[in-house]
Amino acid sequence: MANGDIPEDANGHCPGTQSDSAGKSDACQGCPNQEACATAPKGPDPDLVVIAERMANVKHKIFVLSGKGGVGKSTFSAQLSFALAAMDFQIGLLDIDICGPSIPKMLGLEGQGIRENNLGWSPVYVDGNIRVISIGFLLPGPDEAVVWRGPRKTGLIKNFLKDVYWNELDFLVVDTPPGTSDEQISIVQFLGATGIDGAIIVTTPQQVSLIDVRKEITFCKNVGVKVLGVVENMSGLCQPLMDFKFMRMTETGEHTDISEWVREYLREKAPVLQNLIACSEVFDSSSGGAEKMCREMDVPFLGKVPLDPQLCKAAEEGRSCFIDNKCQLSAPALKTIIEKLIENNGFSRMLVDSA
Amino acid sequence: MANGDIPEDANGHCPGTQSDSAGKSDACQGCPNQEACATAPKGPDPDLVVIAERMANVKHKIFVLSGKGGVGKSTFSAQLSFALAAMDFQIGLLDIDICGPSIPKMLGLEGQGIRENNLGWSPVYVDGNIRVISIGFLLPGPDEAVVWRGPRKTGLIKNFLKDVYWNELDFLVVDTPPGTSDEQISIVQFLGATGIDGAIIVTTPQQVSLIDVRKEITFCKNVGVKVLGVVENMSGLCQPLMDFKFMRMTETGEHTDISEWVREYLREKAPVLQNLIACSEVFDSSSGGAEKMCREMDVPFLGKVPLDPQLCKAAEEGRSCFIDNKCQLSAPALKTIIEKLIENNGFSRMLVDSA
Repeated sequence: MANGDIPEDANGHCPGTQSDSAGKSDACQGCPNQEACATAPKGPDPDLVVIAERMANVKHKIFVLSGKGGVGKSTFSAQLSFALAAMDFQIGLLDIDICGPSIPKMLGLEGQGIRENNLGWSPVYVDGNIRVISIGFLLPGPDEAVVWRGPRKTGLIKNFLKDVYWNELDFLVVDTPPGTSDEQISIVQFLGATGIDGAIIVTTPQQVSLIDVRKEITFCKNVGVKVLGVVENMSGLCQPLMDFKFMRMTETGEHTDISEWVREYLREKAPVLQNLIACSEVFDSSSGGAEKMCREMDVPFLGKVPLDPQLCKAAEEGRSCFIDNKCQLSAPALKTIIEKLIENNGFSRMLVDSA
Repeated sequence: MANGDIPEDANGHCPGTQSDSAGKSDACQGCPNQEACATAPKGPDPDLVVIAERMANVKHKIFVLSGKGGVGKSTFSAQLSFALAAMDFQIGLLDIDICGPSIPKMLGLEGQGIRENNLGWSPVYVDGNIRVISIGFLLPGPDEAVVWRGPRKTGLIKNFLKDVYWNELDFLVVDTPPGTSDEQISIVQFLGATGIDGAIIVTTPQQVSLIDVRKEITFCKNVGVKVLGVVENMSGLCQPLMDFKFMRMTETGEHTDISEWVREYLREKAPVLQNLIACSEVFDSSSGGAEKMCREMDVPFLGKVPLDPQLCKAAEEGRSCFIDNKCQLSAPALKTIIEKLIENNGFSRMLVDSA
């Protein structure tokens, strides 16, 4: 962006805040920022050079974004990291959700802390292949609120990039908070010059989420970050019928739990129903969901992941969903999506080497 | 807070940014903000006086907060407004989620705009009793991204408070984005002097959400906003058994939809199961959920709302869930919660008057 340093609400003929004549040209007369521009230090941010050095050994940088919160972005980031690590990639997982960090819990790292040594801040390790950084590791207690305005959040994100010693990484996965504000603008500015592979956008099939995803895609296009693809999460709840609880509504409108009786009945009188899987749409997807939106916005659709209570449980407990068969309904879907991501983007080199 | 104008990272003996000796006392020597403090205008923000005038006719101010996004905060705000409006209260619904406004959609107001007249900005009306303000009404198109850092978001929130002509309101319901950053800090600062009744905090039973709710409660305690109560949303999915889809897993791991056959079977061979309601926990609540957390944090627990696909649908379509019987599983729960809220806080005066 040649004119990136001209504020969008600037007066006409603004020379740009980084220009030598900033605050001094004729057009600056009467501008409320004249003095700030005339006295501010010029030239590129020297911290960007430090960040570029830190990132020199990071092969791929992927952002995980969402328009709306609570769509499973951190769950996806965590499971993506587990999956890539299981393929022998070296993963860095950077949580830049400053006010609501979920990553420590989702990797089973609650109560851990960041150490410092002569190479910089040292991330928290999981299983050897995953290195994690989150503000969660810096807080004195889990109830502690981080009541920070934008500049302070931006400052910490910069620290995470310039002070952390990641060593060599195949992937730096950046888990972001929802929205298109300080955190997202800053991470793009800080990493822009080092090469960003792109962003994965997570959504639910709900229209309220899809509306915000469209904003997120517009943001990516505006700042020049490639959309690697969209994942539709919580795409219907699927669960073995026998795992449900069953209620009967009484005449007074109250519910009585008759699960035991129903399960017994199914076993004895209707065994043909026993092994069924019951699915609910949960979120209305009559508008066509993420797949249709992707066609309209011309970005790749990576696939759907059902709302699987077992996946929620794995996330809460900080476990990979790929190591056992508990997440039988969601893990295969996630695996397909991650394989598609790797294949679409030619990320598979190291995997082939090590095979 | 007597020392509210002393920055928390200030040097010792900082006289405070609002003090007459700001930037001029001995302690200011060497402080990077010395010049800013010495030259900045002193005294209270004159806009706060304008806001106080606008708020003089607003009886109650309630914030709807959440730590994590996607827990149903906007759905709750919208349905709370519908419920209060149906009780003949005059409601203002202010959406301060600047980057991801959901309120226009959830009140069926997409494509509407804010008008200006000699009294100020005019909110969008719903059914006579609800007046709505959201950045969604100011955007040229629904895909438009709002890529704003904190100060600009704060500026717009101030505009919403000082420029909107709300007229007389029983309740101003403020729907916030997730977190504890610019939007939350600003709304508390702007409305603090006018009297804030308190905040309702919405969460899911998930631990990742409860962790963030604890932060939100800490925030409320720190800034002196009363917690009116916590609502546990998406507290298990409940749905009539006949509304589910049924799948059979084939030997190759694929799913075949056999819903028609199962429904037929239930009708003919197991009619006793036909009218059952099937519930799934969805989010693991073995940790005790919001109720236990409320006891630990000593704040009121208002109740649980099940994850009801019909409520999601009503929200997507911008409808009240109280006007028909479609949301049979969630609407009664919401109603009980809202009645409890009104009763606990003595909000019922006007209702009694008009009865």
